[in-house]
Amino acid sequence: MAWQRPDGRQPDELRPVRFERHFTRYAAGSVLAHSGNTCVLCTVTVQPGVPKFLEGSGQGWLTAEYRMLPAATLQRQPREFMKLSGRTQEIQRLIGRSLRAALDMKVLGERTLTIDADVLQADAGTRTASITGGFVALSDAIDTLLQSGELTSSPIRHQIAAVSVGLLDGEPFLDLDYTEDAAATTDFNVVLNDELGLIELQGTAEEGSFTRAQLDRMLDVAEKGIKTLMQLQRQALQQPHS
Amino acid sequence: MAWQRPDGRQPDELRPVRFERHFTRYAAGSVLAHSGNTCVLCTVTVQPGVPKFLEGSGQGWLTAEYRMLPAATLQRQPREFMKLSGRTQEIQRLIGRSLRAALDMKVLGERTLTIDADVLQADAGTRTASITGGFVALSDAIDTLLQSGELTSSPIRHQIAAVSVGLLDGEPFLDLDYTEDAAATTDFNVVLNDELGLIELQGTAEEGSFTRAQLDRMLDVAEKGIKTLMQLQRQALQQPHS
Amino acid sequence: MAWQRPDGRQPDELRPVRFERHFTRYAAGSVLAHSGNTCVLCTVTVQPGVPKFLEGSGQGWLTAEYRMLPAATLQRQPREFMKLSGRTQEIQRLIGRSLRAALDMKVLGERTLTIDADVLQADAGTRTASITGGFVALSDAIDTLLQSGELTSSPIRHQIAAVSVGLLDGEPFLDLDYTEDAAATTDFNVVLNDELGLIELQGTAEEGSFTRAQLDRMLDVAEKGIKTLMQLQRQALQQPHS
Amino acid sequence: MAWQRPDGRQPDELRPVRFERHFTRYAAGSVLAHSGNTCVLCTVTVQPGVPKFLEGSGQGWLTAEYRMLPAATLQRQPREFMKLSGRTQEIQRLIGRSLRAALDMKVLGERTLTIDADVLQADAGTRTASITGGFVALSDAIDTLLQSGELTSSPIRHQIAAVSVGLLDGEPFLDLDYTEDAAATTDFNVVLNDELGLIELQGTAEEGSFTRAQLDRMLDVAEKGIKTLMQLQRQALQQPHS
Amino acid sequence: MAWQRPDGRQPDELRPVRFERHFTRYAAGSVLAHSGNTCVLCTVTVQPGVPKFLEGSGQGWLTAEYRMLPAATLQRQPREFMKLSGRTQEIQRLIGRSLRAALDMKVLGERTLTIDADVLQADAGTRTASITGGFVALSDAIDTLLQSGELTSSPIRHQIAAVSVGLLDGEPFLDLDYTEDAAATTDFNVVLNDELGLIELQGTAEEGSFTRAQLDRMLDVAEKGIKTLMQLQRQALQQPHS
Amino acid sequence: MAWQRPDGRQPDELRPVRFERHFTRYAAGSVLAHSGNTCVLCTVTVQPGVPKFLEGSGQGWLTAEYRMLPAATLQRQPREFMKLSGRTQEIQRLIGRSLRAALDMKVLGERTLTIDADVLQADAGTRTASITGGFVALSDAIDTLLQSGELTSSPIRHQIAAVSVGLLDGEPFLDLDYTEDAAATTDFNVVLNDELGLIELQGTAEEGSFTRAQLDRMLDVAEKGIKTLMQLQRQALQQPHS
Repeated sequence: MAWQRPDGRQPDELRPVRFERHFTRYAAGSVLAHSGNTCVLCTVTVQPGVPKFLEGSGQGWLTAEYRMLPAATLQRQPREFMKLSGRTQEIQRLIGRSLRAALDMKVLGERTLTIDADVLQADAGTRTASITGGFVALSDAIDTLLQSGELTSSPIRHQIAAVSVGLLDGEPFLDLDYTEDAAATTDFNVVLNDELGLIELQGTAEEGSFTRAQLDRMLDVAEKGIKTLMQLQRQALQQPHS
Repeated sequence: MAWQRPDGRQPDELRPVRFERHFTRYAAGSVLAHSGNTCVLCTVTVQPGVPKFLEGSGQGWLTAEYRMLPAATLQRQPREFMKLSGRTQEIQRLIGRSLRAALDMKVLGERTLTIDADVLQADAGTRTASITGGFVALSDAIDTLLQSGELTSSPIRHQIAAVSVGLLDGEPFLDLDYTEDAAATTDFNVVLNDELGLIELQGTAEEGSFTRAQLDRMLDVAEKGIKTLMQLQRQALQQPHS
Repeated sequence: MAWQRPDGRQPDELRPVRFERHFTRYAAGSVLAHSGNTCVLCTVTVQPGVPKFLEGSGQGWLTAEYRMLPAATLQRQPREFMKLSGRTQEIQRLIGRSLRAALDMKVLGERTLTIDADVLQADAGTRTASITGGFVALSDAIDTLLQSGELTSSPIRHQIAAVSVGLLDGEPFLDLDYTEDAAATTDFNVVLNDELGLIELQGTAEEGSFTRAQLDRMLDVAEKGIKTLMQLQRQALQQPHS
Repeated sequence: MAWQRPDGRQPDELRPVRFERHFTRYAAGSVLAHSGNTCVLCTVTVQPGVPKFLEGSGQGWLTAEYRMLPAATLQRQPREFMKLSGRTQEIQRLIGRSLRAALDMKVLGERTLTIDADVLQADAGTRTASITGGFVALSDAIDTLLQSGELTSSPIRHQIAAVSVGLLDGEPFLDLDYTEDAAATTDFNVVLNDELGLIELQGTAEEGSFTRAQLDRMLDVAEKGIKTLMQLQRQALQQPHS
Repeated sequence: MAWQRPDGRQPDELRPVRFERHFTRYAAGSVLAHSGNTCVLCTVTVQPGVPKFLEGSGQGWLTAEYRMLPAATLQRQPREFMKLSGRTQEIQRLIGRSLRAALDMKVLGERTLTIDADVLQADAGTRTASITGGFVALSDAIDTLLQSGELTSSPIRHQIAAVSVGLLDGEPFLDLDYTEDAAATTDFNVVLNDELGLIELQGTAEEGSFTRAQLDRMLDVAEKGIKTLMQLQRQALQQPHS
Repeated sequence: MAWQRPDGRQPDELRPVRFERHFTRYAAGSVLAHSGNTCVLCTVTVQPGVPKFLEGSGQGWLTAEYRMLPAATLQRQPREFMKLSGRTQEIQRLIGRSLRAALDMKVLGERTLTIDADVLQADAGTRTASITGGFVALSDAIDTLLQSGELTSSPIRHQIAAVSVGLLDGEPFLDLDYTEDAAATTDFNVVLNDELGLIELQGTAEEGSFTRAQLDRMLDVAEKGIKTLMQLQRQALQQPHS
């Protein structure tokens, strides 16, 4: 028998998504991204200079940090201190790579953008919400630089969004919440650009394995979800800043 | 000539204060506390057990953690990792001591409450906003425990609030923002309970020294501010949870 | 024009592979795995007990550690100390997940196997060599436990192997060496079991993006390579221990 | 009934105070400060240069480190390693701020003085003994710099001393020893300069709260104690170095 | 031409040695050991229990920690924090091994003695002064345990002392000070017991090498020095505690 | 009754020794050194520049790192992380000092050689095998520099080798294996150069003490062993690189 989604969604249906732009005022971009009960504060700050390996190249850089606030989950989780967990490092590296794919680093020039993705509330999908919300904050940050005259043309080359998809009872389901994530036998994170080009694909069989046919069907569902997310990103970005 | 406040406030006037209760959903208490442009997420989580030195005593415990998100200020500040700054440690110890003064630990019983004060936006006064907002979150957390039957009577014995006061051109000013804080020659943090009993008093002459007469006048101003804050706390707590 | 492989290999051809079993004598399994100039010492040690979250479950556990010796590359690289890089953490988590997919943890029982993958020489493909060589060492370690009577039936359910594949000039190439890895626009790591079921799939567009058609062709090439690797693993394991 | 002091002192009476100057020979200033059974080695060393934020300002800097030797208390306490406790950080920041108030940093010029306060024996009041003894060591260090010609005029603008005062049975008592400190409901540390200007005021209600009237009486007692301490500092400094 | 000692000592002459017993009051043993300008505070504290590997063995343990206070040398040296230098670890391990050779661990029983050797002033020879002074403090600590009835017979089996000897211009010199230590081509530390049995021998040719004949002559000189040190230890221990 | 060696060796007989040169290909020197069942990978890498204290001196430097792989011993040992054990630090300092005695640092010039000694298999004597094998790797690394023209004359001034010797039942035995090492009452490590000059001598009485007569006999045995080791080093170095 097939998996019944706890919230009654269709297999290829996203949770409600919302982007609160300009959530804080001192960062160049600041978006509170909601995806169902998952809620991530994505800020973008701009600093002059680039890491050692890029100095003098004329190219910019983008890096990301990801953390969960201790009270983001039902059980309080201690802050990561002294060392980052492998999970956290994987996620922040994924966010960084994904959003670098949005930019033409030559146009950005020798400055560094830092995406800070702080999860205020976690109901699975925090890494994909960080990427999707992070893109909105990144767009706002670039606007800030354009308006201040620091940049004269936009380095944004691609819109980027991400979504999770998983296998439950052998079938693909889009945008898993925590309950579904724990029950899924395979867990996939997919990052696409606005041409539906694949940027990142990370899939793990938590139990057993999955076939190439299942892979194909998961990618179909992910593509559909990401098209919707990109529409929502564009809608949010078109709203004037009150 | 006397100090002119950048935002035109009276010397003994607070910045606009607002408490957004139930800001996140998994913590027992969760309040987004605004004080002017300062904005702190105060959550309270409950865990069974107490630290070693209290085991078997029948008494509960409350502890606090304080952090600033990297994008809370105009310049991005690196996360504290590997070691906490002295400033952060002082602040989280202050928050913990202040809010422990609200509770009867015998009535709380052997459980530990953790206040997490995460500063989303910083315009000075973050430690006092953490205490004042933390009290509201603490009240909500206790309500959660009472409603779930984990507690049968409330351990809250005192309402607690805190405010800063400083000397500018030798005169006391209430609730300094960042510009004022940087200009003040003396900086005071005052924590009172609902009987106007002093819980904590921390004052530092950043420049020169201050007299006992000036101390008295600063305490007058602080008392006035805290009376208002306590009224606002009570108003917020009387609103039903929509 | 198409990419010419520096060592003249066909696009779907592996580098020479060799497994030196029983390379060290105190570990339950110990294999020096060669893949071209990449050389990884894979050892498996057995310890009683399991991590907290499995205690009392009757199930075993497998975990992995991955390191590069400082002189494994042309430029000496400092040892990772105080903190592991994100890359190292990702790799050791990948090795662990992949080899756990080989085992029936109930049959293993409450003991922990640790795979240590120490790279003595690095010419790209160290993570896949760690998994493929690690499986051989794991088989030897299980044999050790069977021979000593600690286990009465083998917990190995699946043969596991891994390979890298990348896009160069838009075409898929198998098992990249360092020069190729640096030139590839897309980098994929594929872990399969003996039914060609997918265990892990991790692909990153280092530059631009890749299409679903390219993904399909990369998986074709990877499947072919892994079939060969599994043959070589079986050959190695059939040789008696001199 | 009122508190009876274990050593029979009057409520406003200090413990015996002694400053052994030139206790070690390589530091610019070195004082073994005794206050009852509390004993702190205060050394002052001089280094060229100042922290980043003062470079080029022409101003000097003073910083402090505070530690307890493991055998300073009845129970051996492990050394602080890897991380400083909040208590230690608070204390060393307090010592630094207090003794900076003694100096005209322009006259000191771009050099850094480090106060090391190492507690050899602890019977409460270690932070105030560090400040009071530290001032004597600071005076000696400045003399060293004047005698060597490194400085041509003294940067010392104020004499600084510190004392603790607490509430026991609601009444103020000066300079608490360990037994009294543990019994006090309120604990105050007061730092004054030679004009009795307040430099630092830190008070905590360990239990209940305290009134503004009690605060006033504690400050009276503290002022009296600090006047005596300053006399003793001056006497010690007038003795020639045998 | 032969080396002229800066302080005019004979080649086999010790610096002035002095042991101030009962220097602090809370440790079971506390000795301020002077050797020329080198000055080490040696304290011994007693704790119930032993490390894991001795639990249930009925045997006691002795361990040592060694540190230099920052102002012990002419240039302030930062405290060792986060990690101990190799030098510090070597020294504290040497002190521990040497003083364990004084004790019958069965008679001591399952308690742990900790020697803390804190160098207040350093003019070379700090490790040997820590051992020689540490033995005096150890004797006092054992007396404390005997007087309190915690022990009924003394576990001290051997008197232990240590000295340095070095080659300067090819000739052996006893108990080098800092200037000599820096000039010596070979540096030896010798620990003997009261039967002149060798406990530890550590020699390093800082420059060139040394012959077995030179080794013999260095040991002659070391033996002579240690005989004197043992006499001074006994004299110190015979003085009643005023 | 005298100690019977588990492997039937004579008291002054070494275990079988073998040096596999060019074991890895990217380091300037790379030797897998076997001494019985002890097996250490010794690599030498060359980096431009020297530590701060030698900059501008025209002199080179050599430093060493020593680690045991986790599976080198029967029981898996966790990797040293965050902090090195005292044992590891002592050993790597010893290796560095010993091999620096091989070189004329002026001829080496301002470059730094790093010896990495990674123990793949441990049956006692790992530190002496690291030194003896490290010398062979060092010779190869110098040859690499001579052949590439980076050096025009060899800085090697002395051949260096090391061996352990211990007292078992009061008699000296050469090159202890793990069983013997655990049983020995005294443990000595001796480093000599090709003129049989002493470079390092480190002896510890693990139990009781040892006499000067025993010391002499241990040194006789060590000298004999090191003569053989030096012959084996020369033989290995004369073989052409296939």
